[in-house]
Amino acid sequence: MPHIHVSAELPGIRALLAFRPETAGPLAALANALLHAPNSLSPGERELIAAHVSSLNDCDYCRDSHAAIAACHLGDEAAVRSAVEDPESAPISDKLKALLSIAARVQQGGRQVRDEDVARARRHGATDTEIHDAVLISAAFCMFNRYVDGLAAWTPSDPGGYHARARLVAEHGYSISLPQPATSS
Amino acid sequence: MPHIHVSAELPGIRALLAFRPETAGPLAALANALLHAPNSLSPGERELIAAHVSSLNDCDYCRDSHAAIAACHLGDEAAVRSAVEDPESAPISDKLKALLSIAARVQQGGRQVRDEDVARARRHGATDTEIHDAVLISAAFCMFNRYVDGLAAWTPSDPGGYHARARLVAEHGYSISLPQPATSS
Repeated sequence: MPHIHVSAELPGIRALLAFRPETAGPLAALANALLHAPNSLSPGERELIAAHVSSLNDCDYCRDSHAAIAACHLGDEAAVRSAVEDPESAPISDKLKALLSIAARVQQGGRQVRDEDVARARRHGATDTEIHDAVLISAAFCMFNRYVDGLAAWTPSDPGGYHARARLVAEHGYSISLPQPATSS
Repeated sequence: MPHIHVSAELPGIRALLAFRPETAGPLAALANALLHAPNSLSPGERELIAAHVSSLNDCDYCRDSHAAIAACHLGDEAAVRSAVEDPESAPISDKLKALLSIAARVQQGGRQVRDEDVARARRHGATDTEIHDAVLISAAFCMFNRYVDGLAAWTPSDPGGYHARARLVAEHGYSISLPQPATSS
């Protein structure tokens, strides 16, 4: 049961966003800029970083919801599962493997990123912006994961339940997660 | 030296915000909503949570900059230092001690928050919104700390250098951290 009184109808972070619209706006805008806005890393690749970090943080809701969104973008559920659980053996590019390895270091702590981790990413063609974004996506999911589990938000028991929502987010981005203002009719 | 090419003139997160304006906007808006906007917890109390979590994450830049902002609000540097390093023995309210203890649990991981931690905060008068905000401030600084140290942003060696900036942020909030658009004259 959640630690505070939030909507029982909304899963995971969506109940928290509805509870506190003042912070929901910046959080959705951040997710959108990091995961959905046009970028040299595809939305599917960025969602893989989000799902991998969520897996390392044991946040089931964020892992399953972002893996589902990644699968919508990439069209290959098995590859997504493999990249989320064990990037080094997954059928993904060497550049993405290097960025996922930086993200895993950031998950342990900011000071864990080594020069050689960054050098590996550059060797496989990563730009400054891609390295920046891998670090910030990982850091942001260290926030989102703690937000969801720190307040014990409700997590659906059936991962299949994420699919319909994932399709919507993959298409329209994260602003659809914002609470809608009440209509006056 | 930072892992990517950012301004050598700006310390800590400010160089990163200038590097990537697309994410700077949501990050500054989040900091403002959590730490500066009107709230039943004072800005000084919220800055203490930010500085305490940054200390637990070994992020010197965030610890010293937010401790300096807390001192501007609270007017007592010794009390701030004490609350950042050892909240239980600091001259602060029992409610704030309980919220700082929730924040410390979140820093370890979202699943570390126990029902009894939340019950203690309620016993000392904390509302749902205050518990929500303590969790999200801690989660957000697990992001900001990883962002700053994960990219090895430059940290000034003299903590005294934080004071002038702290006074500005305490007065005007976090939108002043945003990169200014170039003026065409």
